[in-house]
Amino acid sequence: MWIYRWKQIGLYIFNFHHSLVFNIMFDLVIKDGNVVTADGVFKADIAVDDGKIVQLARKIEEHSEKVIDASGLLVLPGGIDGHTHFQLNYNGVMTADDFYTGTVAAAFGGITTVIDFVTPSSKSYIDEFLMRRGEAEGRAVVDFGLHFIVTDVSEERLKDLEVLAREYGVSSFKIFTAYRRRGLMLDDGSILELMKLCRALGALLLVHCENEEMINRLVDRYLSKGCVGPEYHALSRPAYVEAEAVRRVGFMAGLAGCRVLVVHLSSGQGLEAVKELKRSGVRMYVETCPHYLVFSDEVYRRPDGAKFIMSPPLKGVEDRRMLWEGVSKGVIDVVGSDHACFNSEQKLRPSRFTEIPGGVAGVEHIIPVLYTLGVRRGLIGLADLVRLTSYNPARIYGLYPSKGTLMPGSQADIVIFNPSLRIRLTRENLHSNLDHSIYEDITAEGHIQHTIVRGELVVEDRQFVGRRGHGKYIQRQTENPPTI
Amino acid sequence: MWIYRWKQIGLYIFNFHHSLVFNIMFDLVIKDGNVVTADGVFKADIAVDDGKIVQLARKIEEHSEKVIDASGLLVLPGGIDGHTHFQLNYNGVMTADDFYTGTVAAAFGGITTVIDFVTPSSKSYIDEFLMRRGEAEGRAVVDFGLHFIVTDVSEERLKDLEVLAREYGVSSFKIFTAYRRRGLMLDDGSILELMKLCRALGALLLVHCENEEMINRLVDRYLSKGCVGPEYHALSRPAYVEAEAVRRVGFMAGLAGCRVLVVHLSSGQGLEAVKELKRSGVRMYVETCPHYLVFSDEVYRRPDGAKFIMSPPLKGVEDRRMLWEGVSKGVIDVVGSDHACFNSEQKLRPSRFTEIPGGVAGVEHIIPVLYTLGVRRGLIGLADLVRLTSYNPARIYGLYPSKGTLMPGSQADIVIFNPSLRIRLTRENLHSNLDHSIYEDITAEGHIQHTIVRGELVVEDRQFVGRRGHGKYIQRQTENPPTI
Amino acid sequence: MWIYRWKQIGLYIFNFHHSLVFNIMFDLVIKDGNVVTADGVFKADIAVDDGKIVQLARKIEEHSEKVIDASGLLVLPGGIDGHTHFQLNYNGVMTADDFYTGTVAAAFGGITTVIDFVTPSSKSYIDEFLMRRGEAEGRAVVDFGLHFIVTDVSEERLKDLEVLAREYGVSSFKIFTAYRRRGLMLDDGSILELMKLCRALGALLLVHCENEEMINRLVDRYLSKGCVGPEYHALSRPAYVEAEAVRRVGFMAGLAGCRVLVVHLSSGQGLEAVKELKRSGVRMYVETCPHYLVFSDEVYRRPDGAKFIMSPPLKGVEDRRMLWEGVSKGVIDVVGSDHACFNSEQKLRPSRFTEIPGGVAGVEHIIPVLYTLGVRRGLIGLADLVRLTSYNPARIYGLYPSKGTLMPGSQADIVIFNPSLRIRLTRENLHSNLDHSIYEDITAEGHIQHTIVRGELVVEDRQFVGRRGHGKYIQRQTENPPTI
Amino acid sequence: MWIYRWKQIGLYIFNFHHSLVFNIMFDLVIKDGNVVTADGVFKADIAVDDGKIVQLARKIEEHSEKVIDASGLLVLPGGIDGHTHFQLNYNGVMTADDFYTGTVAAAFGGITTVIDFVTPSSKSYIDEFLMRRGEAEGRAVVDFGLHFIVTDVSEERLKDLEVLAREYGVSSFKIFTAYRRRGLMLDDGSILELMKLCRALGALLLVHCENEEMINRLVDRYLSKGCVGPEYHALSRPAYVEAEAVRRVGFMAGLAGCRVLVVHLSSGQGLEAVKELKRSGVRMYVETCPHYLVFSDEVYRRPDGAKFIMSPPLKGVEDRRMLWEGVSKGVIDVVGSDHACFNSEQKLRPSRFTEIPGGVAGVEHIIPVLYTLGVRRGLIGLADLVRLTSYNPARIYGLYPSKGTLMPGSQADIVIFNPSLRIRLTRENLHSNLDHSIYEDITAEGHIQHTIVRGELVVEDRQFVGRRGHGKYIQRQTENPPTI
Repeated sequence: MWIYRWKQIGLYIFNFHHSLVFNIMFDLVIKDGNVVTADGVFKADIAVDDGKIVQLARKIEEHSEKVIDASGLLVLPGGIDGHTHFQLNYNGVMTADDFYTGTVAAAFGGITTVIDFVTPSSKSYIDEFLMRRGEAEGRAVVDFGLHFIVTDVSEERLKDLEVLAREYGVSSFKIFTAYRRRGLMLDDGSILELMKLCRALGALLLVHCENEEMINRLVDRYLSKGCVGPEYHALSRPAYVEAEAVRRVGFMAGLAGCRVLVVHLSSGQGLEAVKELKRSGVRMYVETCPHYLVFSDEVYRRPDGAKFIMSPPLKGVEDRRMLWEGVSKGVIDVVGSDHACFNSEQKLRPSRFTEIPGGVAGVEHIIPVLYTLGVRRGLIGLADLVRLTSYNPARIYGLYPSKGTLMPGSQADIVIFNPSLRIRLTRENLHSNLDHSIYEDITAEGHIQHTIVRGELVVEDRQFVGRRGHGKYIQRQTENPPTI
Repeated sequence: MWIYRWKQIGLYIFNFHHSLVFNIMFDLVIKDGNVVTADGVFKADIAVDDGKIVQLARKIEEHSEKVIDASGLLVLPGGIDGHTHFQLNYNGVMTADDFYTGTVAAAFGGITTVIDFVTPSSKSYIDEFLMRRGEAEGRAVVDFGLHFIVTDVSEERLKDLEVLAREYGVSSFKIFTAYRRRGLMLDDGSILELMKLCRALGALLLVHCENEEMINRLVDRYLSKGCVGPEYHALSRPAYVEAEAVRRVGFMAGLAGCRVLVVHLSSGQGLEAVKELKRSGVRMYVETCPHYLVFSDEVYRRPDGAKFIMSPPLKGVEDRRMLWEGVSKGVIDVVGSDHACFNSEQKLRPSRFTEIPGGVAGVEHIIPVLYTLGVRRGLIGLADLVRLTSYNPARIYGLYPSKGTLMPGSQADIVIFNPSLRIRLTRENLHSNLDHSIYEDITAEGHIQHTIVRGELVVEDRQFVGRRGHGKYIQRQTENPPTI
Repeated sequence: MWIYRWKQIGLYIFNFHHSLVFNIMFDLVIKDGNVVTADGVFKADIAVDDGKIVQLARKIEEHSEKVIDASGLLVLPGGIDGHTHFQLNYNGVMTADDFYTGTVAAAFGGITTVIDFVTPSSKSYIDEFLMRRGEAEGRAVVDFGLHFIVTDVSEERLKDLEVLAREYGVSSFKIFTAYRRRGLMLDDGSILELMKLCRALGALLLVHCENEEMINRLVDRYLSKGCVGPEYHALSRPAYVEAEAVRRVGFMAGLAGCRVLVVHLSSGQGLEAVKELKRSGVRMYVETCPHYLVFSDEVYRRPDGAKFIMSPPLKGVEDRRMLWEGVSKGVIDVVGSDHACFNSEQKLRPSRFTEIPGGVAGVEHIIPVLYTLGVRRGLIGLADLVRLTSYNPARIYGLYPSKGTLMPGSQADIVIFNPSLRIRLTRENLHSNLDHSIYEDITAEGHIQHTIVRGELVVEDRQFVGRRGHGKYIQRQTENPPTI
Repeated sequence: MWIYRWKQIGLYIFNFHHSLVFNIMFDLVIKDGNVVTADGVFKADIAVDDGKIVQLARKIEEHSEKVIDASGLLVLPGGIDGHTHFQLNYNGVMTADDFYTGTVAAAFGGITTVIDFVTPSSKSYIDEFLMRRGEAEGRAVVDFGLHFIVTDVSEERLKDLEVLAREYGVSSFKIFTAYRRRGLMLDDGSILELMKLCRALGALLLVHCENEEMINRLVDRYLSKGCVGPEYHALSRPAYVEAEAVRRVGFMAGLAGCRVLVVHLSSGQGLEAVKELKRSGVRMYVETCPHYLVFSDEVYRRPDGAKFIMSPPLKGVEDRRMLWEGVSKGVIDVVGSDHACFNSEQKLRPSRFTEIPGGVAGVEHIIPVLYTLGVRRGLIGLADLVRLTSYNPARIYGLYPSKGTLMPGSQADIVIFNPSLRIRLTRENLHSNLDHSIYEDITAEGHIQHTIVRGELVVEDRQFVGRRGHGKYIQRQTENPPTI
C-alpha cells in the first residue's frame, strides 16, 4: 500500500498493492552523497522543501518530487563569490558578461550567490543602489547582493550609507586606495572617517589595496621610456605597492576598530602584512582570487599577455606559493573571483598597457581550481574548501546562517560536485559570454555536476536548467554578534 | 488512518480513523529545540535510532518511541570531559567517586564521555590498561576512554605504548614534569624521546606542567619555617612554576613536532607562554578547568581552605580574568574537569599542606559554569560553549566525528540544556559521591535537563534513569589528518 | 727657571728664578674637569692647539695661552643640533632668529654645530645651496651644515642632489609627508625613488612624518564648525597621524635599504612604530625635541596657547612619558631643537590655528633640559647625554670623528657645563632674538659655563665672547662604513 | 738645550747644545699608533706613568724612559678574557697550564686580564676563594679576577657569597645546568634563589647552559649501542640541548631581574633564544669562544678528533655562520676563551667520549682569530674588536673604567697589534704549555707585537719580558649603575 500526497492539492491515493507507505514530503531529495560543511564530512541524505533544507538524515525514504543520486559525489553548500563585476562599463568598454551570462557562468562554477558592486556617480547613493539592483533583478539566475563603492565621504553620503546598510541590506562598502584618475580613490583621511562609520554600523569595508603614488611614478617612468607592453603593467605594480597599502589600511582599521577585507590579495609581501596585522588584533580579512593561485607574471611576456591584465597584476612564482600557503594555513579567509572580463579585441587592441581594461573571468573557476590544485594536492581539505568558498563568505558578508551551511532551515543553495569529471577549462567548456579563456591549458580534476539555488536546479548534469530572474537580491546583515 | 510499525516485531496496525499516517521510524525524537553545534545555532528536530543520530529536520512528524519536547531548550552535542580521575588510589587514599558515581555526576553535568587515566605500576603497560578498563566497564554510565600515564620510556615500554595506541585506541599519553617523589615525573630527556614516539604514532601528549625543582625549593623553605597551612600550597607553586614548564614542554614539542596538550592551565603567565608557542607554530593545545574560572587563591585563607587544594593551585584574580580571556579568544581549546575528589575528612585532617590529597570535583560543573559565567556574561557564545566542551575535545582526543557534533551518523550523545533552571551547586544538588561542595555559593543560571548517551536517556528531567555499565570503552583515533 | 716659547714668533725667555720648566705648548688647557664622552666619564685635562684637541692627560703642566679651570665642572664634546631653522621666511613671516642670533643662542646652549636647511625654489638646487650657505657664512658664530629639502625628484634634480652630496658635503636630504599646500610634500612614489638615490649615495634621509590627508580632513572639519583656537591645531594632528607616516616611511626605507631619520617625534604611538621598525632591521633613526620632553598638549588651552604651536603639535602626558622612556632606553637616537621661532605678535595675531606660524625656540634648551629632567632624575646618565647631543648626531649626520668626541685630533668643540648653575629659562636669560620664552617656568639645574668652537671661546662665563662669522660651513660625509 | 730630569732622583742636567727641552715625564710613551677604543679610531701618542695612562696626545715630545714606535700598528686596550680554567684538576687530570704558563699565553694573545674560577669543595666559600687566589698570586703574569662557582645555595653559602661580592671583589658567580654527576649542576629552584641574591647584590651570574637530562638520555643510548667515539660527544649534545637551557635560564633571569651571562654559546638555536630573550627585556649577555668561530663538528671524525672535545661541543657549519652573524650584529657581547687544555695523551687515551677531559686552548687565540676572520673579512670593525674583547668584558664583569678603555686615568693595559704579522698557530708559535695545537692550520693575519700590563711590558716584540707574579688580583665591582 502506498499513500501519495500530491503536495499542492493534498490529494491522497492509496495503493494497497504495496506494503510500503510513501508520501510526497519534499520537493527534492539528494541521496547518498558525502555532505561537506565547514565542520566536516558525513554521509547523509538531504531533503529540500520550499527552497530550504528541511532534513538531513542517514536515509530519507519518503517520496520526493525530485531525487538526485549523489552517490560518489560531494554535496557542498553553494559557493558565495563576494567579488564580481558584471555588466560594468569600464571607461566606456562593457564587460563581456551581464548579470545573466555572468550568473549562468557562476551557476556552472558552483556559485549560488554573487555579490557585485554599485559604482556611484553624481546621483544619490540610494538611487544608484536601486538602479544597480534593478539591473540584476530579472537577469540573475543565482542570488546576488551588492557592495557599495564609496568615493565621497561627505556627511550626506555617510547618511545614505547608513540607510543602505540599515534598510537595504548593503552591509559592506568598498574603497580603493588607488585609481585617483578614475575617481575611485579615497584619501586616508576619508578612509578613516568611513571606517568609523563602518564600526558604528557593524558594516564591513572592502579595500582595494595598492599605493597610487608608487604606481603613478613607475607608470610614468615606463611610459616615458616607451615601455608600453603588458609586462610593464606588472612591473609598475610590484608586490610592495600592495603590501604598503595593506599595512596602511590595517593600521587605520586598527584605529577605527572596524572590520576590513583586503580584496584580491596577490603577493607574498601583502600576505606577510596581513599576517602581522591579524596577529596584532586588527580585524582584517583577506580574499585572494583563482588567477593568483594558478598563474604567475611570466604570462605577461606571452603574445596574448594582455589577456592576463588585471589589477593588482599577477606576481611571481614565490608569491603564488605563499598565497597557497596562506590558503592552506587559514590566513586567507575567502576566495572570490574579481570576475570582470573583456573580450579579446578589447584586451588586445590597446597599444599601451595603461589602456587595457583590467580584469579576467573567474566566477566559474573558484571551486574547480581550489579542488584541483588545493584538495587534490593535499594543501587543503574538503572542509577548508567549504570554508573558503561558502562558510567564511557567508559569515563575513552577513549571509549566515541562511547561506554558507547545510543545516535544516538554511536556504537550499547546494552544489553537487563530481570528483570524477575531467573538464578542460577552454572557452567551449565555460559559460561566460567571454570569447576566450586564459585557463584553457588547465584541466579541472573534478567539477560541478548540479547546482541548486534555493531549492531549484539551475544546472543539472552540467546543463543549464535555470531561469533568468530566478536570482533574488539578498539583504545582508551587518556584523554578526561575535558568536551565537 | 495511521500505520503503526511496532519496530521490533514489524507489526503494522492500520487506523483508518485518522487522516495522518504514522510509522514508528525512530527510537527517539527531540523536537523544537535550538540545536547548537560548533558551526552555529539552528532550529531543528533530531531523530535518533540505534544509538545514532539519523535525522535533523525542520519538523519530524514520524512517530517515535520516545519524544522529547525541547522547545525553549538548547540541544547540544554531549560534553566530553578529557580529564577525570575516578576510582583512584592517591597515596593510599581513595577518591570519593568510583566509575559509577563519577559518571553519574558526569551525566548530570551533561558529560557523555569521560577520558580517565591508566596509572602504571610495575606490571606491563598492556595489563595495566586492561585492568583499568575493566574497572570502568560495568560501572560507567557514560562512555569512557583512557589516557595512559607514562613514567618510564624504556624501549620495552615504548613498544607497549605503540600497541596501546594502535590496537587499543589509547591515542594519548600523559606525563608529569613534577611529582618526582610520587614516581610520576619524567625527565626532559625521556620526555623528548616520548614526544618522538607520539609524533610517529600521531598520538597526543598531555602534560602536567609545573617545575618540580622550583616547587621543592619553596616547599622546603616553607616547611622549614613551620608554614604548613593550605595557603602555602599556593605560595609554593606560583604562576611562574607553571609558565616555565609550559615553555620548556612547548620547546620540546616544537623540536619533536608532536602535538601536546597542556592540562589544567591555571595562570596568566602560563597562558602567555601558550600564546607565544602557538604563534610560533608549536602544535600546542591547552585545557583549563572550571575551578580556575570560578575561584581565586584567596579561598586558601578560609577555614576550609584545604578543600580547595589541587595542583596546580588556584592563582590570583588577574589570572582568572586572563583565563577567561583565553577562553573567550579561543586560546584555550578545551575545558576539562580534573575531577579528583576526596571527602572532607581526608582534605581537612592533614596538618601540613603537603599531605592534603589534591583535587576537587568538577565533572558536573563544566557546562553549567561555562554557561553561567561565560555565555550569560557575553564572554563566549553558544557555539563556543560547544567547541570548548565537545567539538574541540572530540577533534583533539580522536573521537570526531562519532562524537563532538550532531550530524546524521554521529553517535547520539545529546545534552538538552535548560537555560531557565536555577540550581545552586550545593552538595544536595550535585551527584558525585563527594560529601561537600566547594561551589555551594554558586548558582547555575541554566543547567542540564536531559542527557542522552548513544541514544539512551541517562538523565531525564534531572532524574537518573541510566544504568550502571551502559558506558562503553571508546577506542580513540590517533591524529586526524590535518583536515578532512 | 722657566722657558717661555712665544708661540707665534718662537721667542724663548728663560726665567731662572723658577725651578719649574714652562713652555707654552698650547692655545688652551682645560684643567681638572670631569671629561664625558659616549664611553664614560674620566678625570683629565684637555689641551687644545690650532683648533683641535691635542692632548688628554691626567695633569697638563705645560703652559698654555689660556687655562680654564674646570674643577667641579663637566667637559662635554660640543652639542650638535641637527635641526634648526634660522633666517627662514615662513609664508612671508621671518623667523625671529637669523644665523647670527640663532647661533649665539646655540652657543649659550652648548651647541657648537647646527645643521640648518636649504629650502629649494625654482632655482637650481646647487644655486639654492650656495645662496643658503652664503646667508650663514659671515653670520654664524658656531659651525653649521645644511640639509637639503627635496620637493621634486625629477632626474635633473636627482643629479643635483648627487653633486651636493659628493662635492658640497650635503650628506642628508629632508622630505615632508605633509604640507602639500606649501609645496613641501613629496608623494610616496617620489619618496621611494629618492630613497633609492640615498641608498646609492650613502646619504641620510630626514623625514617629517605626518599623514597629510588625515590632517586635512580633520582641519576642514574643525574649521567648518568654527573651531579655530590653538587647541584645534593639536586635535587635528593626533598621534596616529604621525604613527601612520612613520610606519609608511619605515616600510619604504626597508624596501630601499636607505637610512632614514624621523625628525621631531612627538608621540608614543610614533615611538612604538619606530621600535618595531628598528627591530625588523629597518635602518631608522629618530629625533625628538626638548619641547616634547617638557610640555604636553594642555598648554594649548592657555591664553597664550598659540605660542606653543609647532608641527607636529605637543601630545599628551603619556606620550611625553613614553618619549622619555625612548630617550632613556636608547630608542631615540638624537635630540634636536627644530628651532624655528616667531615673535609673539606673529604667533598670537592669527585668528585661526591654521594661520599661526609653526615653531618654537629650542637650540639653547636641548642640553639644559636633558640634564635637568634627564640626568638629574636618573633617567639617563652623562654618557647618554653626550650620546644624544653629540656622539650620535656626529655619527648619523656624517661629522664623526671631527666632531662628536673629545679625542686627540678631534676639533676642539667643547662645552663646559656647570651643574651648580640655576638658571630660569626666561626671556631675559636666553639669547635668541625671540621676544618671549615658553620655558619661562622651567629652571635649569645646571647650565653651560663656557662654549668653545674649534678652540675659540664663544661663550665664557656665560658672556658672549665670540665673533660673527667664526662659524664655518662643514662638509659632511655620506654613510660611514658600518664600523671602523 | 735640554733639561733632563732623572725621574727617581730629581736630578736636572741642562744641555745647552740642543734647542729642545726634554724632561723625563713618563715611564713609557707609545708613539704614532692608531689608537682604537670602543668609540672609534684616532691617531695619538699615549703616555704611561706609574702603571696608568696619563696622556693621549697628537704628539708627545717629552722624554720617556721607554718609547715604543707604534707607527703602522694598532694600539688597543688590553684584552679581558673572562673565561679561563688554569691549574684545574678535572676528575684527577690536571690542565696543561697553570697560572704561570696560562697567563704567559694570555699575554702573547693580547690578554692583560683573565678571570678564572673558584670551584668549591666542602670548605667554606671564603676559604676556597682565598686558596684559589693564592694559587694565582705569585704565578700570574697578567692581572686576574675570580668568578665563584656555586653548587649549593644553602643560607650559609649565600651569606658567604655576599661577603665575597662585597668584600673580596668577586662580583660574579657561575652555575651549571648540567654535570650533575660531577656535582656541579644546580637545580632550577636553587638557580632562581641564587638569581635573587645576584639581583640584590648587583652580581652577575654566568651560566653554563645545557640540559642535563637530555644529554644523559642520549649518552646512555649511544654508550648502550657501543657508540663511543668522539663524534658521539657532539651527537649527544645537539644544539637544542643548549637552546633549551638558555631559554629556561633566561626565563628565570627575567623573573628574578638579575643579569646573566650565557657562557660559551655554541649554536644558532642558542643564539636565536638569546635574541628573543634580549628583545623581551631580559638582562642577558652572551659569550662565545674562538673555537666555535673557527671549527665545526666535522673535526670529530678526524683521527685526532678527541682533541676537539669540549662542552658544549662544536656544532655545524651553519651554527658557526650564525655565531659570526651574532658577533657582527652585536648580539654576542663578549668573546672569551674557555681555556682549559689537556695534553694529547689525556685527550686521546680514553676509549669512550665520556671519559675525555673537555676543553681546548684559547686564551692566546681570541684577538688574532677575531682580527683574521672578523676584521679582515669585513664582518666586524676595529671598534667592534675592542668592544668584544675589552670594553664589553670590562663593563659586564665590573672592571670599567680601570680597564677596558684607554682614557687618562685608566690602567695602562695596552696591546700593540701588528696587522702585518703572519703567524701560523702551530704548537711552536704558541705559548701555552699544551703539547699540541688544534689551530695549526690557521694562519693569523695580524698578531700581537707588544703587551703591556699596568705599564709594564710583558711581551715585547713577541718575546716574553714579563715576570712571574706581576699579575695582581683585581677586585671587581658589582653592577655599575645603568649609566654614568
